[in-house]
Amino acid sequence: MRGQMERLYPICRSITGDGVRQTLGIIAESVPLRCVGVASGTEAHDWTVNDEWNVRDAYIADTSGRRVVDFGEHTLHLVSYSVPVRARMTLDELRPHLHTLPDHPDWIPYRTTYYHRTWGFCLTQRRLDELDDGPYDVVVDSTLEPGELTYGELVIPGDSEEEVLLSAHLCHPSLANDNLSGIAVATELARTLAAMPRRRWTYRLLFAPGTIGSITWLARNPQAASKVRHGLVLTGLGGPGPLVYKRTRHADRAVDRAAVHVVTRHGGEVRDYSPYGYDERQYNSLGFDLAVGRLTRTPHGEYPEYHTSADDLDYVKDDELLAAYAAAVEILDVLENDAAYTNLSPYGEPQLGKRGLYPTMGGKSASDVVMAMLWTLAYSDGTTTLLEVADRAHLGFAAIRDAAERLEGAGLLARAEDPDPAGPGSAGTAPE
Amino acid sequence: MRGQMERLYPICRSITGDGVRQTLGIIAESVPLRCVGVASGTEAHDWTVNDEWNVRDAYIADTSGRRVVDFGEHTLHLVSYSVPVRARMTLDELRPHLHTLPDHPDWIPYRTTYYHRTWGFCLTQRRLDELDDGPYDVVVDSTLEPGELTYGELVIPGDSEEEVLLSAHLCHPSLANDNLSGIAVATELARTLAAMPRRRWTYRLLFAPGTIGSITWLARNPQAASKVRHGLVLTGLGGPGPLVYKRTRHADRAVDRAAVHVVTRHGGEVRDYSPYGYDERQYNSLGFDLAVGRLTRTPHGEYPEYHTSADDLDYVKDDELLAAYAAAVEILDVLENDAAYTNLSPYGEPQLGKRGLYPTMGGKSASDVVMAMLWTLAYSDGTTTLLEVADRAHLGFAAIRDAAERLEGAGLLARAEDPDPAGPGSAGTAPE
Amino acid sequence: MRGQMERLYPICRSITGDGVRQTLGIIAESVPLRCVGVASGTEAHDWTVNDEWNVRDAYIADTSGRRVVDFGEHTLHLVSYSVPVRARMTLDELRPHLHTLPDHPDWIPYRTTYYHRTWGFCLTQRRLDELDDGPYDVVVDSTLEPGELTYGELVIPGDSEEEVLLSAHLCHPSLANDNLSGIAVATELARTLAAMPRRRWTYRLLFAPGTIGSITWLARNPQAASKVRHGLVLTGLGGPGPLVYKRTRHADRAVDRAAVHVVTRHGGEVRDYSPYGYDERQYNSLGFDLAVGRLTRTPHGEYPEYHTSADDLDYVKDDELLAAYAAAVEILDVLENDAAYTNLSPYGEPQLGKRGLYPTMGGKSASDVVMAMLWTLAYSDGTTTLLEVADRAHLGFAAIRDAAERLEGAGLLARAEDPDPAGPGSAGTAPE
Repeated sequence: MRGQMERLYPICRSITGDGVRQTLGIIAESVPLRCVGVASGTEAHDWTVNDEWNVRDAYIADTSGRRVVDFGEHTLHLVSYSVPVRARMTLDELRPHLHTLPDHPDWIPYRTTYYHRTWGFCLTQRRLDELDDGPYDVVVDSTLEPGELTYGELVIPGDSEEEVLLSAHLCHPSLANDNLSGIAVATELARTLAAMPRRRWTYRLLFAPGTIGSITWLARNPQAASKVRHGLVLTGLGGPGPLVYKRTRHADRAVDRAAVHVVTRHGGEVRDYSPYGYDERQYNSLGFDLAVGRLTRTPHGEYPEYHTSADDLDYVKDDELLAAYAAAVEILDVLENDAAYTNLSPYGEPQLGKRGLYPTMGGKSASDVVMAMLWTLAYSDGTTTLLEVADRAHLGFAAIRDAAERLEGAGLLARAEDPDPAGPGSAGTAPE
Repeated sequence: MRGQMERLYPICRSITGDGVRQTLGIIAESVPLRCVGVASGTEAHDWTVNDEWNVRDAYIADTSGRRVVDFGEHTLHLVSYSVPVRARMTLDELRPHLHTLPDHPDWIPYRTTYYHRTWGFCLTQRRLDELDDGPYDVVVDSTLEPGELTYGELVIPGDSEEEVLLSAHLCHPSLANDNLSGIAVATELARTLAAMPRRRWTYRLLFAPGTIGSITWLARNPQAASKVRHGLVLTGLGGPGPLVYKRTRHADRAVDRAAVHVVTRHGGEVRDYSPYGYDERQYNSLGFDLAVGRLTRTPHGEYPEYHTSADDLDYVKDDELLAAYAAAVEILDVLENDAAYTNLSPYGEPQLGKRGLYPTMGGKSASDVVMAMLWTLAYSDGTTTLLEVADRAHLGFAAIRDAAERLEGAGLLARAEDPDPAGPGSAGTAPE
Repeated sequence: MRGQMERLYPICRSITGDGVRQTLGIIAESVPLRCVGVASGTEAHDWTVNDEWNVRDAYIADTSGRRVVDFGEHTLHLVSYSVPVRARMTLDELRPHLHTLPDHPDWIPYRTTYYHRTWGFCLTQRRLDELDDGPYDVVVDSTLEPGELTYGELVIPGDSEEEVLLSAHLCHPSLANDNLSGIAVATELARTLAAMPRRRWTYRLLFAPGTIGSITWLARNPQAASKVRHGLVLTGLGGPGPLVYKRTRHADRAVDRAAVHVVTRHGGEVRDYSPYGYDERQYNSLGFDLAVGRLTRTPHGEYPEYHTSADDLDYVKDDELLAAYAAAVEILDVLENDAAYTNLSPYGEPQLGKRGLYPTMGGKSASDVVMAMLWTLAYSDGTTTLLEVADRAHLGFAAIRDAAERLEGAGLLARAEDPDPAGPGSAGTAPE
């Protein structure tokens, strides 16, 4: 994951353009991604695909030609979607186009102007304070012309046609937590899922620009969207905070129950849905109503480095990414394996001892392994799922899943028929 | 409100009598109150309207004629509904008829004997301690004879015939918080409501003696009672405590949701229903089952000055009354304006920017105004009301109401048909 | 209760054998217990009744004949269900058969080997440390042969054929809290119930060995089991902790509501069901699904003395047993008397004063007796039960029950028809 992030970091990404295509190309080295281009001007529900934006060069130079702000130095120096400019201006004339962070004088802010044709530069407050009155040569050598919006998707088939959507936005330039971390974890999850011999669900990985990208995908893929039973937006998975799971709008979908179980046991936080954030806004919108939660470590707006040059490769530590990846794997393990079972020996406790499942010497307290079996037997009524058992037992899902396997092996438990062909995990997750 | 309270304070009110009529007369100077007299002896469900009580004079005098306890000095000196007496008694003979507060030796208690024919005097402990053995001349020059019980009501019509009941008891003599404060706030609310160009609901203001007054009104007005969809008892709105809202018996009626939202945001407290207190006892009784909550600042029995001469005009501060009035106005604003809306652009977020509703420069956090719009769009499914959106968003109702207006203006939102002709606010509030 | 415990303490009990029969004989001196023997080898669902185990003698002696571990000294010295042995062994050969508690060097542990044919001795760590290398003569003069499992039961008939099951396990040897305390309290409850002139429910007291005993009873008495509407396992009722009520698997049965009300008011704790503990495991198993909770003071495994010789007669204090007995009586009082009532004067409050139920002098706060009547009137809608009223009012069940009697006497309240012939207390408690 680190290597991919280091390669992706210097690229100037935005919601369209060459940087997006380069990024998808690097992801495609790891997994067989399909890239899709959608022409500028295409209608997507209430939105229209923007013109494509590319930058050859951009700078502010003093009259001696010395560049005092240079896009070549850092992609954040240029406001994203800045229109072409070539002018000589005094500092006072420039000021309305300059963005700084006075409270963090060494950081460059991240600003965009996707839907309003203007231009601007972002720089450190310290750099701004050093500038004299000018004049300056201001050059934005960009193009903003009909082209395409590009996204990448990968479908990993499973036993069911119903899908788990894993979505990461890829429109941010040189910002590591937001969202190279999400791209790296999503890529690694794709490799893990593809390597599994068999999957219950079909998995769809989507790497797309934020907002307009997910809306465009939703608009063009109504059939695929209607098959999404569970989903996660993967974003901001580095940084020092605990894991944070943001619920779906309905709060109690299968993915919510799975993620709450896992994230809570990892010491993380669970938050209610709010209509601000990343592409969960689009997936959860009333018209689509997809059960897509969001897994984050350090959420947007809650760390000072957010949307600044300080969200760099040093901000994201390897162990943070690994922990986020591990939590995502555990959530998918619940989605893959949660099911209701039926206790085949329900009249009193079955005698575990005669099956070698109980200690022979009595009088001492029960082990965790025995307790997991007792909980599973006590609640496996053909309706209660293993995750529900785990939550009641205050045990991890894996412990209960192992107990169920052991009991199934001993002929004491049988998997219940799924009441819904989509599997019990999908109960209540279909769009309404 | 202060001026009205100062005029009402010296009047000797009880559950019947001239003081009640004088009080209604003073209220009627502000709002077109209709006064209703109900003859003594009239049956009202399990109760019977009392004889009317009036006092010309009442005192205890020593043999020199010096009045040591004098009703003319303070209305609390005489136990309410004391029967006529003219006797010479020693202090020991008098003692069973004297009431003091040993813990508050300078305060006169408030006592009543509405339904048991006896008499008594209330005085400060300090005064009692100064008395010698007597004898004393005791005079209660009262009448307790067939007459009438009087209440005042005012109906302010609205678009719906269904009603909001605002009720304040007016039977207490010279006690300011209990309940000149409620009378003053109710009067001011009546003026405010009458001045509105249009109202969703019909409003009924009721100024009546406690218990027997509300029961008599309920008994005589079954038709009007059946139209009450929401209501508030207004009482004890001064004093230093926070606002306190007491829920209806069902706890979750529309008025409860509105009042909990407002009072909580004002830093107030919410309490469950209990069958003790003021006229909410009668409105919420099983037979009527009206959705009437209670707005209070310092509730009965929870301040030492309660039902003593220390509950005087100094106890109630102007800013306390104003804050209580403001909270009541906000509660009525919710009842007037809460409704469900339908998001007309539900597939992903609508593009607010192209409608001038979103900041043009991206990268920064959203403002409260934008957040209020996003919350309203995210939940306006034609069923969820604006108050529910506000509660989820942890924003004030007014902010969400404003957002809904702005979105409606932009063609993104439409008011949903009321599922019930009484309006969505009434869901579940009809008597069962 | 103390006297019975002192007589029972020295007896060597196990899941079968003479000790069980002697114990039942002592209980039968207080209440007319019926003893039932079930032959070894009898199938009981997934289990088979064990061979019967009896011990004549058991010891470890040095070569001089001095007994260094002697079953005659303490019943815990022998692992329960040890097979016969007669051998000379060195200490090293003996060690795998010796059990101690290194952390509590003066305590003898309690160990069993019901379902695995082996043998062993339990001793204090201090005694073990004193032993030289041996050799030792090891004698277990026990029999483990076809015989019977014995339990005792007592049925106290009531107006309904539906039953309350009170169950105490009697398989533990010289251990006082676990479970002479439960046996003593159950015996005392049986005497109390039998002395009542009339009972709403039929009561069944069951004194049986743990696990195999309750499963055997359930297997042989499907008809009786199907009549159990409420139940309590009585165990561990001494010790210094607070009362602990463990809920039924469904958590919200009538017995749960009754016990939560009582135990909470006694300052005790309420815990969720878990499939570990005593015979509630069997009663609550999916196949039987009986609404049997568990009343405990100091639960298994939560005190260091648990399953050691330190759980002796000194560990259990008289006042602890009395408090547990009193709580059980209160729980049964709720089960006996909880019912829904109908307010016959529901239009406003009835005038309590004219019936002598209200103080004649007004102005002061209401007494608890008046409040209990007001709560009962406010909620007696023919569906809400007295226990629900008590919980809302934060008053004890007895106070509300008394208020209901007073109001019924005044003609203001009538008992509602039971919607279910089994009585409202049984709602939702039938096996599914």
